Amino acid sequence: MNTASAADRLIDGVVAGDRRAVARVISLVENGTEHAQAILHALYPRSGRAYRIGITGPPGAGKSTLTNKLARSYRSQGLRVGIIAVDPTSPFTGGALLGDRVRMTDVELDEGVFIRSMASRGSLGGLSRKAKEAADVLDAAGFHIILMETVGVGQSELDVARAVDSTVVVLVPESGDGIQAMKAGLMEIADIFVLNKSDRPGADQAIMSIKMILGFRPHDEHSWLVDIVKTQANDGLGIPDLAALVGRHREYLERGGGLQARRKDRLAKRVKDLVEERLQTDLWSRERLGMLAQDVERAYERTTTPYAIAEQLISHFLNGSGGHDEQRL
Amino acid sequence: MNTASAADRLIDGVVAGDRRAVARVISLVENGTEHAQAILHALYPRSGRAYRIGITGPPGAGKSTLTNKLARSYRSQGLRVGIIAVDPTSPFTGGALLGDRVRMTDVELDEGVFIRSMASRGSLGGLSRKAKEAADVLDAAGFHIILMETVGVGQSELDVARAVDSTVVVLVPESGDGIQAMKAGLMEIADIFVLNKSDRPGADQAIMSIKMILGFRPHDEHSWLVDIVKTQANDGLGIPDLAALVGRHREYLERGGGLQARRKDRLAKRVKDLVEERLQTDLWSRERLGMLAQDVERAYERTTTPYAIAEQLISHFLNGSGGHDEQRL
Repeated sequence: MNTASAADRLIDGVVAGDRRAVARVISLVENGTEHAQAILHALYPRSGRAYRIGITGPPGAGKSTLTNKLARSYRSQGLRVGIIAVDPTSPFTGGALLGDRVRMTDVELDEGVFIRSMASRGSLGGLSRKAKEAADVLDAAGFHIILMETVGVGQSELDVARAVDSTVVVLVPESGDGIQAMKAGLMEIADIFVLNKSDRPGADQAIMSIKMILGFRPHDEHSWLVDIVKTQANDGLGIPDLAALVGRHREYLERGGGLQARRKDRLAKRVKDLVEERLQTDLWSRERLGMLAQDVERAYERTTTPYAIAEQLISHFLNGSGGHDEQRL
Repeated sequence: MNTASAADRLIDGVVAGDRRAVARVISLVENGTEHAQAILHALYPRSGRAYRIGITGPPGAGKSTLTNKLARSYRSQGLRVGIIAVDPTSPFTGGALLGDRVRMTDVELDEGVFIRSMASRGSLGGLSRKAKEAADVLDAAGFHIILMETVGVGQSELDVARAVDSTVVVLVPESGDGIQAMKAGLMEIADIFVLNKSDRPGADQAIMSIKMILGFRPHDEHSWLVDIVKTQANDGLGIPDLAALVGRHREYLERGGGLQARRKDRLAKRVKDLVEERLQTDLWSRERLGMLAQDVERAYERTTTPYAIAEQLISHFLNGSGGHDEQRL
């Protein structure tokens, strides 16, 4: 892509809902090309209409089957659905058995569904930002619902799961699963719990233990009461209940002003991340990394100190080559 | 502390090994007072002689009893020992039973041992830096051995456990403990494993499973072979073996140049953290947070974009009030 008009054509294509333009722009975002930010900047005013739902949980909980079935349920209401899968164990991202893969194709062949998997090779921090930006692209392209599937194991995945309007945490009746989820920080971010594979032994005990843990969360009469839905996603059982509960959460957020507050918090976090990521990149230029390496030798010999080196690097960054003026947009 | 001479007296006190000066300086570090950095800067050239050992592992593994016994073993060789405990479950930090607390006092009453517990309330990121700086103070005060006890549950605690010369990971024969440790990232950082409470059932299986996991780590003829020591710290059993193994690791590092490399890596990481922490603080001044809050409202209304706001904030920081010249040292 060499000319501004190529970027303009892509922007127009996304806004018109052209799948190839959407795919191309998400690839630019994923590859971190210089045009990506300008395109995202241009698309941003078109975004803000999609409702974003996060689907997270431990590996093997059946998140992608659930995502697939939930997407079909929204499709049956005539809604267009975008799916971003950030999960190394997901069939969307190619981590699972061929059997699962085949099952995905019934949504993949639907023109009203756009699926994009993003692999977590390389920098996870960057991936978390890119997944949110990919969702912005789908939003600008007019998808009504965006499902973000992530495996709930690391900080970055939690970041993605939190960057949505409703967060669904999927567990299975394996012993201690509730406790594991609590440890992994999933309990704090859940708006809705799903106990998937609920025909397995231990389902009722798992629900009781989740409810017990939920009972300890502070809440008042105005706050959302986190609830649990039983599903057997493979057979589609419980999916209408889940969709209904997501709908109730959406209503709750829209009525009480919570949706606006959530989205503003998210925006502030996004801006902070953009600023910090850019400064970090500019800060650790090849030149300053070279200075650091030399100074560390001197600090090791005790002829300087980490504090003196830090001061010099900060000063070099703020007053020296770091303060370039050109706007990037 | 109002005058420079008060700071100078503290510096001289630490260098002379005065316990009250050491305690006072660590408090200044812990409270993040403005004098702390200048004092650390002045003390730094006196540091670098202590050997630092990290003791980490899951809660309830008996880390503090082991730390206590290991400290006594070094004391019996005439070495002065400093202990930094960053562990909410440790008796040093007041997290455990009175019985454990009392048992600690036999090292606490010894003039050759200095114990400092640091609570993990508030910012953990900051705590991790402060724990390392407290170790620097003990180093400058002439302690020969510094033991850093942390519970291996979060990234910051792992940071502390890694900021040492030898890292000891303590496990107990509970089922799946090795797997838990692997998940928590403890397997990657261990130079030495301890299977504590090794009289409990399952000890041999636990050792086998740890060895199996270790077998998958890449290593060549020159690399350190991570080994496992069985202990029953309550009765002092296995402590001499542990001390001997730490000694062998130290010899290995000193002979092969690994100690120098480790310490230089640590220094580079410390400088990077200092620079980033300081820039972060300066960046998000009250003024710029105010700008961000206003701009987020406009971005929510789609009259600006996160990318445009980020550019403005970066520009304001690099060219505006952010680039103040005064040196802090």
